Amino acid sequence: MSIIVQKFGGTSVGSTDRIKRMVFNVLKEKEKGHDVVVVVSAMNKTTDTLVKLAGELSTEPSKREMDMLLSTGEQVTIALLTMALEHQGVEAVSLTGRQAGIRTDGVFGNAKITSIDTHRIKTELSDGRIVVVAGFQGITKGGEVTTLGRGGSDTTAAALASALKAVRCDIYTDVDGVYTSDPRVVPLASKIDTLSYEEMLRLATMGAGVLHPRAIKHAREHHVPLVVCSSLNEGRGTLISGKTHRNASIVGVAHQEDISVLTIFDCQGGESLILYDLDSHHIETEIVKYGENLVLIVKEQDFQAVKRIVEQYNQAYSHIEQREDLSKVSVIGRINSSHEVKEKVTNVFHDYHISKVSIWESSVGLSALVEKRDVEKAARVLHMHFGLDYIETKRAVL
Amino acid sequence: MSIIVQKFGGTSVGSTDRIKRMVFNVLKEKEKGHDVVVVVSAMNKTTDTLVKLAGELSTEPSKREMDMLLSTGEQVTIALLTMALEHQGVEAVSLTGRQAGIRTDGVFGNAKITSIDTHRIKTELSDGRIVVVAGFQGITKGGEVTTLGRGGSDTTAAALASALKAVRCDIYTDVDGVYTSDPRVVPLASKIDTLSYEEMLRLATMGAGVLHPRAIKHAREHHVPLVVCSSLNEGRGTLISGKTHRNASIVGVAHQEDISVLTIFDCQGGESLILYDLDSHHIETEIVKYGENLVLIVKEQDFQAVKRIVEQYNQAYSHIEQREDLSKVSVIGRINSSHEVKEKVTNVFHDYHISKVSIWESSVGLSALVEKRDVEKAARVLHMHFGLDYIETKRAVL
Repeated sequence: MSIIVQKFGGTSVGSTDRIKRMVFNVLKEKEKGHDVVVVVSAMNKTTDTLVKLAGELSTEPSKREMDMLLSTGEQVTIALLTMALEHQGVEAVSLTGRQAGIRTDGVFGNAKITSIDTHRIKTELSDGRIVVVAGFQGITKGGEVTTLGRGGSDTTAAALASALKAVRCDIYTDVDGVYTSDPRVVPLASKIDTLSYEEMLRLATMGAGVLHPRAIKHAREHHVPLVVCSSLNEGRGTLISGKTHRNASIVGVAHQEDISVLTIFDCQGGESLILYDLDSHHIETEIVKYGENLVLIVKEQDFQAVKRIVEQYNQAYSHIEQREDLSKVSVIGRINSSHEVKEKVTNVFHDYHISKVSIWESSVGLSALVEKRDVEKAARVLHMHFGLDYIETKRAVL
Repeated sequence: MSIIVQKFGGTSVGSTDRIKRMVFNVLKEKEKGHDVVVVVSAMNKTTDTLVKLAGELSTEPSKREMDMLLSTGEQVTIALLTMALEHQGVEAVSLTGRQAGIRTDGVFGNAKITSIDTHRIKTELSDGRIVVVAGFQGITKGGEVTTLGRGGSDTTAAALASALKAVRCDIYTDVDGVYTSDPRVVPLASKIDTLSYEEMLRLATMGAGVLHPRAIKHAREHHVPLVVCSSLNEGRGTLISGKTHRNASIVGVAHQEDISVLTIFDCQGGESLILYDLDSHHIETEIVKYGENLVLIVKEQDFQAVKRIVEQYNQAYSHIEQREDLSKVSVIGRINSSHEVKEKVTNVFHDYHISKVSIWESSVGLSALVEKRDVEKAARVLHMHFGLDYIETKRAVL
């Protein structure tokens, strides 16, 4: 069996017309002789409607019930896509996360896949059926319905591709690939043809929303090539695999707005407790250490929660300082000489009158905090000065 | 534990405002010290939307996928009602058919409940939670999602009430009880205060849509009293239990439009095969025997299917005759002297110029086929002449 996993996101299945178009993409691979497993998201309108209904009944609905509610969205799509496939005369079967054997931990709203029992899927495939699986959802050992959080359907697709040892996992989305930067902010950003898992992980971690880090890690586990491509046109997309075909060490420039910073001064001893507590609350935090001081970089929406947690440990530090309304810009890639890159970023910022709040080397490259008003300019000038602008790329090829 | 099962139908949970009102009904029983299990249907708009989407993708969607699709409707409602309950500060938990332990056979679209594992529900109740169960759905031994067909949520509620040995099962609906006839056709129809299971079964079998025969049978199994009441006002409703408090043997007049009749002449030997085949296709058929002839009375929508089946056995009879565009009117109750009742019906029809096609005694009482144009008049005059009109009832009480 050569298995292809395809994933269609919320806009790709956003209407029955779109679903009909996706049928074409599925049949194309089937006709090539592949066994096809399709993972789908909820139609984007469905999710909006459900969230609105919940809001009318509760100001803070429990996460368990939100998962119960939202997981119906994918179940609707698998049934509809399967009907559309059957209407074309092919055999197909829809499977919920549970039926597809997707087992998760019990963190409602942000569950992690712990294992996949592929028995049912393999049986259906060997019976000649196209298998349509509900993304974004799984089931705990105790039979509770969970959802996987942001990028959940990508994660389902990559994890299934890995468990099934698929030859490829195609992520159909509303953009035609992974870009060197967000094209809405950096007009000269260009589509990247190939990336290694590590490069893609760095881009994803720093806010390239097109793929969730968890999805990439699942694909890397069994070396399944990922392709990010458009559901609207037939371009090649971006291939993410074990190797890179790029010479440059810098792959992109990412930025995140609405960042807040909490600096903990003279932090002695309590550090690990604070970090453990933040982790158990599933709050994504970037942590930079400056000697005895600890700088927590968090999204604005999480800031109050982080502050509440940190204040519980006020015996463990002298004082805290907060700063809100910032943005983060990151130069992403393998950085051989962090000193050199740091100097280059500092010089570029100086030349363009961008005042930086701080700059540090991170696991993904080099990041800087800037004022919110400067972030788009910062992204554009760094993109240019690190040779990523579309024209530069062209010139290098010629 | 004294358990009350409540069931809210599609109109009772048709909007978030309605759901909020149902919260009041749940809390009322909880405050009396009962353990409460609530069974809900899909919001009626939800079902309409899903059916429309399916129709846009397939002219004849498979029943398995329709069940996969439609069962999401109840899952949405259980989550929403549970959120609304939690918002009032009470502990509640939603359970899908699967989580509630509802096991069915594998007849998609019209599955029968084969067993209920009440373990999870009992655990949740003893933890003090209100349990909100998705009606209309279950799961096969193989883990497939099934729906129970027409009146499915009533069936879920009654079956759960029976399995849990509930003290009562309240069916909240958009009418305030069971009537002696359809009030839209027979304006002098009156609400019935009490009925036995047998009387209710007879009414339900003959088209009183308010309760499905399967639901009544489940309640009868463990003698759980059923109450049919309004979700809009606080009237007493109709109590259905092991005994009747009525003197009259005739409890109501029912009618069904769009009836077709297939008469099989000189049927010898093939009879049981034909009936077995019809049964395996899950087509409801009323069968009347006149000597060697077999009369099949079916709904118009099933007629072509029935005819196809019967024609396969054309060795077993001399010829068939069909008649369409008929209606059926039934006098329902224990009939001591069928001859007397038959004569009365015949006389009433004669006096009111209603020509009958045929008349026969059935398991529910006495039925007659009439022309479609006469059926409403027939229902009204029989209702009056069997002493069921509202005024007559009053007089009897005074």
